[in-house]
Amino acid sequence: MLAEIIAIGRELLTGKTLDTNSHWLAQQLTGMGIRVKRIVLVDDVVDEIAQEVLTSVKYGVKLIITTGGLGPTFDDKTLEAISKATGRRLQLNLQALKMVEESYRRFHQLGYVDSPEITPERKKMAIIPDGAIPIPNPVGAAPGVMLKIGPHIIVSLPGVPKEMKAIFENHVKPRIEELIKQEGKGRKVREKTVSSGLSDESVIASAVKKVMEKVPGVYIKSLPDTFGKEVDIPVRFTAEAETEEEAERLLNKAVNLFFSTLKGDLTNGREGINKDN
Amino acid sequence: MLAEIIAIGRELLTGKTLDTNSHWLAQQLTGMGIRVKRIVLVDDVVDEIAQEVLTSVKYGVKLIITTGGLGPTFDDKTLEAISKATGRRLQLNLQALKMVEESYRRFHQLGYVDSPEITPERKKMAIIPDGAIPIPNPVGAAPGVMLKIGPHIIVSLPGVPKEMKAIFENHVKPRIEELIKQEGKGRKVREKTVSSGLSDESVIASAVKKVMEKVPGVYIKSLPDTFGKEVDIPVRFTAEAETEEEAERLLNKAVNLFFSTLKGDLTNGREGINKDN
Repeated sequence: MLAEIIAIGRELLTGKTLDTNSHWLAQQLTGMGIRVKRIVLVDDVVDEIAQEVLTSVKYGVKLIITTGGLGPTFDDKTLEAISKATGRRLQLNLQALKMVEESYRRFHQLGYVDSPEITPERKKMAIIPDGAIPIPNPVGAAPGVMLKIGPHIIVSLPGVPKEMKAIFENHVKPRIEELIKQEGKGRKVREKTVSSGLSDESVIASAVKKVMEKVPGVYIKSLPDTFGKEVDIPVRFTAEAETEEEAERLLNKAVNLFFSTLKGDLTNGREGINKDN
Repeated sequence: MLAEIIAIGRELLTGKTLDTNSHWLAQQLTGMGIRVKRIVLVDDVVDEIAQEVLTSVKYGVKLIITTGGLGPTFDDKTLEAISKATGRRLQLNLQALKMVEESYRRFHQLGYVDSPEITPERKKMAIIPDGAIPIPNPVGAAPGVMLKIGPHIIVSLPGVPKEMKAIFENHVKPRIEELIKQEGKGRKVREKTVSSGLSDESVIASAVKKVMEKVPGVYIKSLPDTFGKEVDIPVRFTAEAETEEEAERLLNKAVNLFFSTLKGDLTNGREGINKDN
């Protein structure tokens, strides 16, 4: 399994804070048999964070862990960026809201805060991408967030080391270990990258959507290449099933359907489509 | 001025080594008034290092500093990657060779090494990209390397903190400060990004080459966009001159020549070229 760590916060880029979080996470992941491909430190800028998430997806990274930028202040942009990168809209999550409410009730009882009231700033921490799962934060207020997008898992943790470690150890590590076990036993994954013969990603996108609806268990991602000729965008198919044979069958079904859908979509007989499919 | 730091070495991704180098460099650069946009930690893999250098170039980063991967062993891949990213061939640099020879003579006198002989492994440290300048290493054997590519400066430093700091403080910092002073006073920079109207970067590349030969002082870079429709590749023009007026004149000259060259190159009347140019 491949992982990348994205550490978010201007204080990391000005040298004010040493990024010990990524170092600790790299040790944890390596210990779990996961290969960390890249660690990236970025500014609190939505587009820059989103870009790094998309780069990780493009590299075929399974596990993307972000740290920082989950708090109540205006410069906490992580979930907005993940929403932008994945197309999942931000919305109030009631389970997350309950976690935030509980935290402030506790902080109030302990005398840490003047009021347990859920202000808009506090509520912000419960506004997470559609389909994401909030993860309890046993130390601070901002819940962690886990989002599955096709074969990718994006885990967002707070930047405060004590909170980050507590969430990872108590909730993230067990889930990832379970996932690795499932992958090793039950679920088999087959992957294939084909040349689309097309340079227009919007045409590909429509076919991708149709095929993913018709062939459940298959995830498809177009991969425009930044550095080279732009005329032939590769498309990666990832099929998951209980057996290798079934995964292979789903994979071939999806690839064939993709090319026949493309043919159907292209009424003007555009060149470059693989004639065999 | 924008900078990025690329820290190279598998030990950083396994959590074996904490990357204090980037933290120190970020402090230094911030103190010099330079904004660090991104810090990336990557594996000792030529393609992955080259990819990050190209991403920095694409982001318009002026100063790219790499640390690590300059030594004599097989997994020291930094200069090979920079060569790949920039198209500058690796070749033996006699000035660098002299630095390496001197270091080993000194190490031999001090009893650090058995022989001052320049083995192929030691010679490797003097093989640097064409046009690059070696920078003396007052502590270790591997010289630092500085390469100017258009408006970009790539500085490669060893990964050993003591060597990295010594080279930066004694040789890199003064040069960058001089550069900032020049930029502030003498040299003026004007920049413009235009839509090429083309999706084929190879067609653009040929026009870019011709224009850069005919208009000295102008650097041109095509910027294919990874995330979106791939049909219209933007092209960035950067002109440097003694006055703003002259930089502006060079910029316009280059843009106009670029479009007229494209027109001439496209004998088959491809669509999408800006008719005004």
